[in-house]
Amino acid sequence: MQSIKKIVLIGSGNVATQMANAFMDNGVEILQVYSPNLNHAKNLASVIKCEPIDKLENINSGADLYIIAVKDDAIAGLNEKISLAGRIVVHTSGSASLKEISSISDKTGVFYPLQTFTKNRAVNWTKVPLCLEASDPETGELLLEFAERISSSVFEIDSRSRRQLHLAAVFANNFTNYLLGQAKEIISQKLPFSILEPLIQETIDKAFDIGPEAAQTGPALRGDTHTIEAHLKLLENNPEAKELYRIMTEFISGKK
Amino acid sequence: MQSIKKIVLIGSGNVATQMANAFMDNGVEILQVYSPNLNHAKNLASVIKCEPIDKLENINSGADLYIIAVKDDAIAGLNEKISLAGRIVVHTSGSASLKEISSISDKTGVFYPLQTFTKNRAVNWTKVPLCLEASDPETGELLLEFAERISSSVFEIDSRSRRQLHLAAVFANNFTNYLLGQAKEIISQKLPFSILEPLIQETIDKAFDIGPEAAQTGPALRGDTHTIEAHLKLLENNPEAKELYRIMTEFISGKK
Repeated sequence: MQSIKKIVLIGSGNVATQMANAFMDNGVEILQVYSPNLNHAKNLASVIKCEPIDKLENINSGADLYIIAVKDDAIAGLNEKISLAGRIVVHTSGSASLKEISSISDKTGVFYPLQTFTKNRAVNWTKVPLCLEASDPETGELLLEFAERISSSVFEIDSRSRRQLHLAAVFANNFTNYLLGQAKEIISQKLPFSILEPLIQETIDKAFDIGPEAAQTGPALRGDTHTIEAHLKLLENNPEAKELYRIMTEFISGKK
Repeated sequence: MQSIKKIVLIGSGNVATQMANAFMDNGVEILQVYSPNLNHAKNLASVIKCEPIDKLENINSGADLYIIAVKDDAIAGLNEKISLAGRIVVHTSGSASLKEISSISDKTGVFYPLQTFTKNRAVNWTKVPLCLEASDPETGELLLEFAERISSSVFEIDSRSRRQLHLAAVFANNFTNYLLGQAKEIISQKLPFSILEPLIQETIDKAFDIGPEAAQTGPALRGDTHTIEAHLKLLENNPEAKELYRIMTEFISGKK
């Protein structure tokens, strides 16, 4: 069977940058990095030692895989402008469907890493769940073999399930982070945020050990109205946190 | 200086049980465990090899420290019923004030461990933040010396700050756990909950490394209305998750 050895990266942001690291670590050759902003392409290409390009017509047609790692709302524009008939083209989005790149090639796929990426933060790719989808079985097999070289956690997931997963990730990542921000604000006048770290780590460990349903505790679940009233009073000067407290308490109480 | 060597535990739930483990590991002698339910007292006392009691009048007056580890709403009842004049008495509550045990003794304090405790889950006490308060400097010094034997993370915090910390803990623990429950529900038809673990771990690590304000990402922050609309549609059959999504998105958008 053919194997993916040469790649073109379309995009130069956090996802493209962190993927480039993973690919280089696994001996995959990156031929080019494309960005509409040549300086952005150059920044990443200089690390990889490959060709930076800012014109789609200059894309090298000799790669085994073309990875589109751009913002979701930029995918549609690329679908109209690139033609790579017969080549394997994937996007990396949690919410875009396979169809959104169907004009580029008849061999398309999705290579969605379920992780949040930050510039200059190392990623342990062997643990990143890679969610795959493919337009046809042959493409699917090639992507699977490729993905298993990068991570030990690979899933074949259709567009609908991937969208649900992306939505769940918004709760688990974006919304959880917002709650942590509120927690920090509540104590930050007096105490270091780090005081909460062991508690939050145990919260996560416990949720994955016994399930969040079994792990739920607190004044809302106990129906401890005395504490709830006192907490709402403490939040008088923070209307957003107060509103969240009210709603969360109502929903958690309902689980009794 | 005097040092705390002998303890009486008033309470036999998760907090009392996990504290007993910590004290035994540090060579502290536990004289008695009290519970109004003698079987509960016996269960814990049999592990510790100490005397179980179910009558407050049988409390041994020879301990250096009396630790009240009961539900918040049971503290007031004990304050009326126990008299241990001259002895050091502490409670372990995040939200009760020091005054709530002031009838028991004139030497009172708070020994609040900022952690969530579960039966049969080991606790790494050296990392548990212990939040102390004392009625007088002498009691404060004794508690500090004692706490530093148990944990490397000890804080002296007044009642008001401790209440704020407890409130922050509700956000960080109870509310975060509820979000994880929603995330699990969203994907559980198709995918294992564990697929979200690396993402959540990175969310936490990042929030403590660079602060939750800097770590915030997602469709709400980007103002990606296309994705937000699609997500709300996916949540049509889950009104609680939908309401949370709407409010969280509104608040996070406001941070732009």
